[in-house]
Amino acid sequence: MSTGRFITLEGGEGVGKSTQAAMLADALRARGIDVLLTREPGGTPGAEAIRKLLLDSELEIGARTEALLFAAARADHVEKAIAPALDRGTWVVCDRFIDSSRAYQGGGDDLFDDAIMALHNIGSWGLMPDMTFLLTADNEAVAQRLAARDGDNSDRIGGRSAEYHAAVADRFRTLAVSDPERFACISADGTPGEVHDRIMRAMAPLTGEGG
Amino acid sequence: MSTGRFITLEGGEGVGKSTQAAMLADALRARGIDVLLTREPGGTPGAEAIRKLLLDSELEIGARTEALLFAAARADHVEKAIAPALDRGTWVVCDRFIDSSRAYQGGGDDLFDDAIMALHNIGSWGLMPDMTFLLTADNEAVAQRLAARDGDNSDRIGGRSAEYHAAVADRFRTLAVSDPERFACISADGTPGEVHDRIMRAMAPLTGEGG
Repeated sequence: MSTGRFITLEGGEGVGKSTQAAMLADALRARGIDVLLTREPGGTPGAEAIRKLLLDSELEIGARTEALLFAAARADHVEKAIAPALDRGTWVVCDRFIDSSRAYQGGGDDLFDDAIMALHNIGSWGLMPDMTFLLTADNEAVAQRLAARDGDNSDRIGGRSAEYHAAVADRFRTLAVSDPERFACISADGTPGEVHDRIMRAMAPLTGEGG
Repeated sequence: MSTGRFITLEGGEGVGKSTQAAMLADALRARGIDVLLTREPGGTPGAEAIRKLLLDSELEIGARTEALLFAAARADHVEKAIAPALDRGTWVVCDRFIDSSRAYQGGGDDLFDDAIMALHNIGSWGLMPDMTFLLTADNEAVAQRLAARDGDNSDRIGGRSAEYHAAVADRFRTLAVSDPERFACISADGTPGEVHDRIMRAMAPLTGEGG
């Protein structure tokens, strides 16, 4: 049995990652592929318990503690869900993974980025995705989409300033440029179906279909 | 103003660390020293929230996740409580610290011990105590003391096997032998007052009193 493929979706708040992750999982299943659809932080009981701490807007924790908690949640997720699925040949579609830690917690600081990768190596054997779709949108469009969510963006991280989220989007672009083999940048403009079509065209090398 | 001293108490379950930490803090205060008495995991609201996860006997998490969670709790504790106290000249008496992670999570595995120290360097600037009291007791005496606690030893870690706790005690002794400058081994036999007297005699170099 061959090993499954590990695909992640990344990007800022409100670019439609969850919707696209679900549509991608459905499209792969329609091709007869066994798929685990999951998300971070979360994906296992232990990681979901840590997720609750991370998104608790009452809890004041520093950047290092936050990075360690994300790494802890990821370690549980990789050990209990992602690695076993890949081992049995299941493809994994994950809404956020290590690149979110690098873009959000890394803060554009090279030393701290090294620390985040060190935590990933200790906690999760340094597991990296085979392919990462970075959903990009201009900041104006994202602000409108978030406003339309009506109060669903008040958690400890989603609730941060527009400048913070613009800086995160910049760091995602820098990560994508530094690893073009793994990343595909996908415009989040248009209907969910249009964005999905872009993803499926970019998937062609993995699914073995024509581009 | 001079920097405070950082003193930790270590040892397995049921050797009387909490009692001795409180008695030590009282004795230092009686000498006019400002003291922060704290414990791990915990000591800050963020770390106490992580402590609840760590001691939840229902939650099944792996060794790497556990090590990351302890490091996260410690990072918050050091950043918010221990480092600020030391900076303002307060002495810190802490019930368990990094040596507990090394003895419990390290499992006697050198590679994993390196990983635990790497997490400590990333999360907590590698802060080490000025002095560590290792309370030692023979395994038989500890088993009796734990049994007398009547159900207070059923959490996720305290509830593990006698062999596990004996191995932890061995690793504490190995750590103490490897760093005799920092560690003082204190027999936990006898009354709390007798053990306290041993600690105060070993404290003499720090308090500036005769031995």
